[in-house]
Amino acid sequence: MSNLIELINENHKIAIIAHVNPDGDSVSSILALGLALKKMNKEVEIILNDSLPGKFSFLPGKEYLVAFDDRKNTQFDICFVLDCGSKSRVKNGEELFAISSNIINIDHHVSNDYFGDINIVDLEASSTSEIIYNVIENDLEVKIDKDIATCLHTGLMSDTGNFTYVNATSRTFYIASKLLEQGVDIENISYHLHQSKSLNSVKLLGNVLESIEFYLDNRLAIISYTDKQLLKYNATYLDTDGMINYARDIKGVEVAITLYEFEKNKVKISARSKKHFDVNNLVNQFNGGGHVKAAGAVISGNLDEVKVKLKEAVKKSFEINKLTQISGEMN
Amino acid sequence: MSNLIELINENHKIAIIAHVNPDGDSVSSILALGLALKKMNKEVEIILNDSLPGKFSFLPGKEYLVAFDDRKNTQFDICFVLDCGSKSRVKNGEELFAISSNIINIDHHVSNDYFGDINIVDLEASSTSEIIYNVIENDLEVKIDKDIATCLHTGLMSDTGNFTYVNATSRTFYIASKLLEQGVDIENISYHLHQSKSLNSVKLLGNVLESIEFYLDNRLAIISYTDKQLLKYNATYLDTDGMINYARDIKGVEVAITLYEFEKNKVKISARSKKHFDVNNLVNQFNGGGHVKAAGAVISGNLDEVKVKLKEAVKKSFEINKLTQISGEMN
Repeated sequence: MSNLIELINENHKIAIIAHVNPDGDSVSSILALGLALKKMNKEVEIILNDSLPGKFSFLPGKEYLVAFDDRKNTQFDICFVLDCGSKSRVKNGEELFAISSNIINIDHHVSNDYFGDINIVDLEASSTSEIIYNVIENDLEVKIDKDIATCLHTGLMSDTGNFTYVNATSRTFYIASKLLEQGVDIENISYHLHQSKSLNSVKLLGNVLESIEFYLDNRLAIISYTDKQLLKYNATYLDTDGMINYARDIKGVEVAITLYEFEKNKVKISARSKKHFDVNNLVNQFNGGGHVKAAGAVISGNLDEVKVKLKEAVKKSFEINKLTQISGEMN
Repeated sequence: MSNLIELINENHKIAIIAHVNPDGDSVSSILALGLALKKMNKEVEIILNDSLPGKFSFLPGKEYLVAFDDRKNTQFDICFVLDCGSKSRVKNGEELFAISSNIINIDHHVSNDYFGDINIVDLEASSTSEIIYNVIENDLEVKIDKDIATCLHTGLMSDTGNFTYVNATSRTFYIASKLLEQGVDIENISYHLHQSKSLNSVKLLGNVLESIEFYLDNRLAIISYTDKQLLKYNATYLDTDGMINYARDIKGVEVAITLYEFEKNKVKISARSKKHFDVNNLVNQFNGGGHVKAAGAVISGNLDEVKVKLKEAVKKSFEINKLTQISGEMN
């Protein structure tokens, strides 16, 4: 990666950007890299596609975030694109890329299409934050301080489900142990990520959990969000984030799907699986996409019609893959 | 700690026991130590006070667990007591201790009263499993294999809330990184600890969340469990485990309390706080006890009477400590 440090040493005006709908890893990794480059006295712009979700407002460096619209006519010597499988995941990215001289693509997604002039794609990494740790430590040779460590640790927590997903490796834990040496306050991170739920979202969760529907010997769990339900709790679809996991985490459930009719006869679906079921394959049948265990699509029809289609598709897939009550047998 | 290894080298018949109401750290640490001592060809009995909760049934070595009643007349050369602050935390422990020659007390609780002949009490350790890692690695000099690593990692996850509590230190993460080198399947551990919830407990959670009550400018959240509610979902009080955290995790809530009238005019209460409130101090007023952020008590009276008493006590404590809407200000 000597190309990378040469490029950085020879240039000054640097942009850093991540994908639309900012999540914990994307926000944390752009901030960490931005803070590190600032320590190298680079002229850095950390660009956010959308507004910063409130739960990330504690992150060090967030005062350096700028909106894309304010920078779309600026020319950069280097543009880092983080946590994006393709250019299309950056809103209006084409405009930015067109006027930037060197695109550096840093990512951990298997779907990455190596769109950069330099591509640092590590499919073994738990998160982009994990790769950024390596870049800062090994390439930039900047000392990681408490602020950078706080961002990176937040990224690790976010993309590994608090170190419970299979992507959290020995290396991930080793990096976390090095980050904590800098005095990271994990209790404060946990507070912001997990202990600042809105009262309405918790009440909505209660309502949603009481009304889960089960099919196919309880192996398929379906949650439907209606606008009426959201209205009752003064909630938006964003407040439903993560609720699908409660349905998936029930013993015996192999696939959990949520349905939300966001406009007449257009239903947004999200699907999660536990271990033996490929939801990416499921949603592909409806022109959707994602990962083996988490995927989504938009399907035409009203709620009931879409539900029937999905039940049929899941049933067929269970039959083809001979998945009969295997979740309980896992050891 | 050379005493420890000398003692083990000179003796053979060893018992290992932990506290009543087995939790993830106690079960994991007795199994890990048991497996390590078996690798040293010791005659080891791993004794459980109560029956093993189903979610721990995946743990390696659980086939070696024996019930206390089957061993209470057996004499041991050494008795390891793990994760217990005092002898009284071991059910019928006095009988066992009376006929055992050397009590080795290994624990991480600040309340530990150093009851052992040898005391390995490390208040900086996240968990007893973390101390057992050190004991196996440094004192016993047994190679930690995948089975032992799986137990220890489960203990770390259990007592640190998946590495989100302040007790998870750089050292904790370093140990986890070493354990994962042995091939620990953290996805399988997560499946058993978190993804095997009963359908009824999830529906009960829904019902409970919809009926949370808020007081004192939403800073106090109260959940009451009635037998009628539990019956509706074919659930027991054990199924309510952890639900209090949902109330605590709401933005603005500083104290969450659950009430359960387990017999007429006897209410069991559990209290949790976020950051600024000492629930141990609160329950002390009702002859209860615990930690600063998690404590419990049994209070006389019916649900409504107890609720009034608690509201008054919390209100008074807020006033004394001048806690006015500070949770939202944390950064």
